[in-house]
Amino acid sequence: MPREIVVDPLVTRMRDGDRRALARLLTAIENDHPALPELGAAIAQFTGHAQIIGLTGPPGVGKSTSTDALVAAYRAQGLSVAVLAVDPSSPFSGGALLGDRIRMVGHSGDSGVFVRSMATRGHLGGLSAAAPAALRLLDAAGFDIVLVETVGVGQSEVHIASLADTTIVLLAPGAGDSIQAAKAGVLEIADVFVVNKADHDGAAATVRDLRAMISLGQTGEPGQWRPPIVTTVAERGEGATDVIDAIATHRAWLSEHDELSLRRRRRAAGEIEELAVRRLRERWERPNAEVKLDDLAEAVARGVLDPHAAAQAVAG
Amino acid sequence: MPREIVVDPLVTRMRDGDRRALARLLTAIENDHPALPELGAAIAQFTGHAQIIGLTGPPGVGKSTSTDALVAAYRAQGLSVAVLAVDPSSPFSGGALLGDRIRMVGHSGDSGVFVRSMATRGHLGGLSAAAPAALRLLDAAGFDIVLVETVGVGQSEVHIASLADTTIVLLAPGAGDSIQAAKAGVLEIADVFVVNKADHDGAAATVRDLRAMISLGQTGEPGQWRPPIVTTVAERGEGATDVIDAIATHRAWLSEHDELSLRRRRRAAGEIEELAVRRLRERWERPNAEVKLDDLAEAVARGVLDPHAAAQAVAG
Repeated sequence: MPREIVVDPLVTRMRDGDRRALARLLTAIENDHPALPELGAAIAQFTGHAQIIGLTGPPGVGKSTSTDALVAAYRAQGLSVAVLAVDPSSPFSGGALLGDRIRMVGHSGDSGVFVRSMATRGHLGGLSAAAPAALRLLDAAGFDIVLVETVGVGQSEVHIASLADTTIVLLAPGAGDSIQAAKAGVLEIADVFVVNKADHDGAAATVRDLRAMISLGQTGEPGQWRPPIVTTVAERGEGATDVIDAIATHRAWLSEHDELSLRRRRRAAGEIEELAVRRLRERWERPNAEVKLDDLAEAVARGVLDPHAAAQAVAG
Repeated sequence: MPREIVVDPLVTRMRDGDRRALARLLTAIENDHPALPELGAAIAQFTGHAQIIGLTGPPGVGKSTSTDALVAAYRAQGLSVAVLAVDPSSPFSGGALLGDRIRMVGHSGDSGVFVRSMATRGHLGGLSAAAPAALRLLDAAGFDIVLVETVGVGQSEVHIASLADTTIVLLAPGAGDSIQAAKAGVLEIADVFVVNKADHDGAAATVRDLRAMISLGQTGEPGQWRPPIVTTVAERGEGATDVIDAIATHRAWLSEHDELSLRRRRRAAGEIEELAVRRLRERWERPNAEVKLDDLAEAVARGVLDPHAAAQAVAG
C-alpha cells in the first residue's frame, strides 16, 4: 500500500525550496505511486526551464568524480544543480553507487545542490518510465541544471543519458575504450566527449583516436554539430570549467538550430509512449479484457497461432 | 531495402536440415524483415518441441567455455543443440563475442550443432523482439536443445535468459559475485546455479554463500523449486554432465508442477505484447494518425499538457 501523498501542498513546498517535499515526490515516482498523473498535471506548468545534462561512460572512467567537479564548477557560477544518479541496468554490478555517492557530501551543506540516486530494485524497464518523470520533477523544482549520471554500462543508461539536452560521454585512456564506444554507436549520442584522467599514459592517443572517429562520423553537412573533446583530471577539478563551457556552446548551437525544442519534443514523445504502452498492458492483462492476452499466449505456446497474428488481435 | 526472401521454400529447406536456409531466416529476424509475420505463421506448427535453456552470469565467469562444455555433453547423449549467443546490452563492452565464439569451432564439423551470435547493432530494445523470434525459429528447425547464452551483464540479458524453460546462472569464486547477484534479484531467475572455476580459491565459500542465500529465498511452500548448485571446471569439461542432469531434474519438476506450460505461455505473452506495442508505435507515428504523438509531445514539452494526460489521449 503506497504511502498517502497530498500532491498540491507537496508541490508548493517543493517549489518553495523544501528538499524533503522534493524527496518525497521523487520516492512517489520511484514507487510508481497512483498519484503520479495528478503530480504530472500539477507540475507541467513549471517545467522546461532547467538545462538537462546527461553523463555516461564505461566503468572506471571517473563518472562520479566528474559529476562532482561539474557541480562545483556550476556552483561557482551561482547556478543550482540537481544530480540524478541512475543505475538501471546491471543486476550483477550493483553496489558501487553508494560508495561513490559519499563523495558528494562535499556539497552536503549547500542548499543549491541536490543529489538523488535511483536504482532498479528489480523492476525491469521501470527506470525508463521513472527517469524522465524524475527529470521533469527536478526541472519543476527550479534547479538551473539537472545532471543525470548513469552509473551502469547498458543500453538503458545510454538511452537515459540521451534524454538530455546535452549528452556527455566520458572516456579514459587505455583499453580501447574510445574505439569500443565508437563501434557501439555511442558516438551518435555524444554531444561532448570528455577524456578524463588526462594525466595518465595514453590520454593523447585516446584523444587522437576519438578525433579520427569523430571526423569519420562527420557528414560534412553545414549545420552538423561536431562534438568537441575536452580533457580533464576530475580528481583535481582540472578541466571542469572547459566542460561547462563546451556544454554552453552546445546549448547555444541547439537553440540556433532549433534543435533544443526538437530534443525536448522527442523526450516528451518517448515519455508519452512509455506511459501509453503501460496503460495498454494493464488493459490487456485485465481479467475481463475483451481480447485476453492469456488466451492468445496459450494458443501461441501450443503452436496453433503465431505471435504476429496474436499481436494483431490485441492491437488491431 | 531488405533482401527478398521466399518464406515457404526456406522453411521447408530449414526443416530438412539446411543450415544456410536457417541462417538466412535468422538474418531476416535480425533485420526485422517485412516477411516476419508470414514466417511466424509458417513455423508456428513446428514449435514447442525444443527444450530452451538460458545461461547468464557476470563477465569473466566462463560463459562461453561452459556453453561449449554443455554442448559437448548434450552431443554425447545424441541430442542436437542450437546456441544463440546474445549481447544485447553493452554499447561499451562489445567485442568479446567474436573472440569467445572461436572456441565453438571445436564443434564446427558437427551437423548436430548450430551456433549463431546476435548483437544489437544499435537498435535499442531490438533484441527483446528478435531473441524470442530466433528461439522460436531454432525450435521449429528441430533442435532438441536451444541454448541462449547472454554475454552482457544488463537487464536485457537477464530478461532474455529468463525466457528459457530452465535458466542457469553462472558464477565464479571471488569478488562477491554471488552476493551481488542475489542482491539484484538474479536469484529469482536462477533455476540452476553453476559455480564454475571450482578449482580456484574461494569456490567453497561461493557455494556456501549461495546456499545460505537460496535458503533465505525459500518460502517453505511445498511445491517450491530449490535451485541446486553445481560446481564445474568448464575448461576441462568437468561437471558438465552434472549440469545437464540438474537441468533434466528441473525440467521434470516443471512438467510435474504444470510450470512448463505456464512459462511458455508467459514467454508467448511477452512476445505478443512486444509485437503489439510495435504495431501501436508505428500507428501513432504515422503522419495521418488520428491522435498525433508529435502534437502531444510538443504540448508536453511546452508544459501545457502532462505526459499522463497525453498517454491517455493516445491509448485511451
